[in-house]
Amino acid sequence: MGIPAYSVRMAKESDGAISALLKLTQQPDMISFGGGLPSEESFPVEDLKNIINDITADLNGGVLQYGVTEGYLPLREEIVKLMASKGVQISVDEVLVTAGSQQGLDLIAKAFIDKGDKIIVESPTYLAALQAFRMYEAEFIEAPLDEDGVIPAELDRILATEKVKLIYLIPTFQNPSGRTISAERRKELMEVIRKYDVVLIEDDPYGDLKYTDDIYPTMKSMDTTGQVLYFGSFSKIIAPGFRVGYSIASAPILSKMVEGKQSCDLHVSIFSQMVIAEYLKRGLLPEHLQVINAQYKEKRDLMLASLEEHMPDGVTWTHPEGGLFLWLELPAGMSSNELLPEAVNQKVAYVCGDSFYAAGEPKNAMRINFSNATKENIVKGIITLAEVIKNKM
Amino acid sequence: MGIPAYSVRMAKESDGAISALLKLTQQPDMISFGGGLPSEESFPVEDLKNIINDITADLNGGVLQYGVTEGYLPLREEIVKLMASKGVQISVDEVLVTAGSQQGLDLIAKAFIDKGDKIIVESPTYLAALQAFRMYEAEFIEAPLDEDGVIPAELDRILATEKVKLIYLIPTFQNPSGRTISAERRKELMEVIRKYDVVLIEDDPYGDLKYTDDIYPTMKSMDTTGQVLYFGSFSKIIAPGFRVGYSIASAPILSKMVEGKQSCDLHVSIFSQMVIAEYLKRGLLPEHLQVINAQYKEKRDLMLASLEEHMPDGVTWTHPEGGLFLWLELPAGMSSNELLPEAVNQKVAYVCGDSFYAAGEPKNAMRINFSNATKENIVKGIITLAEVIKNKM
Repeated sequence: MGIPAYSVRMAKESDGAISALLKLTQQPDMISFGGGLPSEESFPVEDLKNIINDITADLNGGVLQYGVTEGYLPLREEIVKLMASKGVQISVDEVLVTAGSQQGLDLIAKAFIDKGDKIIVESPTYLAALQAFRMYEAEFIEAPLDEDGVIPAELDRILATEKVKLIYLIPTFQNPSGRTISAERRKELMEVIRKYDVVLIEDDPYGDLKYTDDIYPTMKSMDTTGQVLYFGSFSKIIAPGFRVGYSIASAPILSKMVEGKQSCDLHVSIFSQMVIAEYLKRGLLPEHLQVINAQYKEKRDLMLASLEEHMPDGVTWTHPEGGLFLWLELPAGMSSNELLPEAVNQKVAYVCGDSFYAAGEPKNAMRINFSNATKENIVKGIITLAEVIKNKM
Repeated sequence: MGIPAYSVRMAKESDGAISALLKLTQQPDMISFGGGLPSEESFPVEDLKNIINDITADLNGGVLQYGVTEGYLPLREEIVKLMASKGVQISVDEVLVTAGSQQGLDLIAKAFIDKGDKIIVESPTYLAALQAFRMYEAEFIEAPLDEDGVIPAELDRILATEKVKLIYLIPTFQNPSGRTISAERRKELMEVIRKYDVVLIEDDPYGDLKYTDDIYPTMKSMDTTGQVLYFGSFSKIIAPGFRVGYSIASAPILSKMVEGKQSCDLHVSIFSQMVIAEYLKRGLLPEHLQVINAQYKEKRDLMLASLEEHMPDGVTWTHPEGGLFLWLELPAGMSSNELLPEAVNQKVAYVCGDSFYAAGEPKNAMRINFSNATKENIVKGIITLAEVIKNKM
């Protein structure tokens, strides 16, 4: 005989969009605006080498033993300091080290979501958050947005009429849209959230990739009720290969996430945690952020200028103040999905917009990454993409 | 307001037994037979230092970028060779690198288990497997055992009358009992399994920790239908801190596990994967196993001799041919749970037997780890434990 039926969550599962993308981006002649990859040139390789050499010189068996699920204490202490610099005063007991901030999404859904439970998401939102939440058979409510982000009165209306467990927002330099919720709007949203039994997940992997002098306070810094979880990551600001991120949560919620993580993988690689802890401890991050933000700002500006120069009328795009992505909209009626095979044929890739909507619509948008391609390829890729679009208009 | 209700799976969740244990074992004056920790002295620290230094010398941005979910290709190639040495011929497409073999348990449950789906387990079985499967609201059927392991006729009877999705076995040097399913019995069990639509998980983190010349072929090596999954780990034979294990599965099942892993943590730390890959590539493992198996055999022998010398009549224990654990049974009517506070008070710890039963009964057993304590503490701890038992008899 053979294999029994897969679980319902797996039957519902998408076509492995992320994996397919990661594979696509590894074709050497492809200009990929698809992945969410930081630039390899942005990684502080020499500093990391020095740190690894120093850690290795002192390596002993005790270090390589099993560790506690919550994470390596010196790293959690550094994360406490990092959060203080974001206006958030916490203790180490509110820090869980995760395998990238992605793991926080899995763990928080595991802690709260039963089949059919509702999560409010932005529209569009991060596709791998939808994927993680779908694994727990969550249902989604797309929150109406305006230029400043989710509309507080609309959020209030949804929370008053629907039983919602989680609200998932990427307030700063959002993936996929590149949009940011305004500072004033953050306060208004927090006022609404305080009225209900609901948890806000503030996912913030891009907040430090900032190409503006504007200040956006974290929503966690406005949290007076323990309802806000903050998810951070070192993947975009140091390097993703170590798989180190963190969740900040009040102690009762954190203890549920710890239980979930125990049964999943026990803890994050100790060696990875030591490298990141030492990088933070040496105070290297602020200067490194200045360096990479200057690089990324240049790429963003180049992409915006290329779009301006080459895109036909009727195509619009966002002007992100930070992060890795911009969001491009084709004229209504056009489909980025229909365009993709020809684009890939011409060696340029992007992610179709519908992947980022809980409901899978509309189809006329695409997410474009500006951090990973070389400057030469940004120009070349946008010219190619503009040609592909014009030919379908 | 505040926090909404946790999910049903979390309401059902245990009291964080593993986390509590890990914390207990970190008290410096405690003789802990509780954790499942390999000995720190068993880790090949000097070889690992050399490998890390060599990897670091060649480190570049490309290496530290996001990788593919399936795992670092050179590591998967080494795992293919390792499996060949266990009689299992596979291709790299059947290998998924996981964050310890523990993660395989989470991913396979995610792939197959809906609320109420049934899993056959040994009785007793690995407590963190129960914990991982409970997160997906599985129900358990305890398989009747005799001295050679699960009884084939009983397995056949269960599979004929119940709709079972997964069978979870640790055939070799089992955690917690130290028992091994005999070679003949493995064949008989495979014949039963082939008659049904069911997947067998062969969890084998201890198979290489072998203090006997007897040969136990892996059940995966007898798999002709793709129904057997094999889970392996480098935690016990190299070092746990890197969090590197693997799942071997036929391609369709593996692709479901990959989907589950994508939404959870994307991939295992690349640096950890490179270290383990290079360790295997340099051919260091066979000799290292000889060294640590000699150390562990000595500890096992010492613990068996200490038990023989100090335990009162009526107490029995297993004589494991490998692995890290033995299983001690108190006379019927005594409870290891009631004994534990006094044992901990006397600075010796173990894990109560009921944690390893899906149904939580009986209460008169305990799991004792012989790998982690020093030889001096093995003797001291067993003398203390024997006194604690005698005083309650």
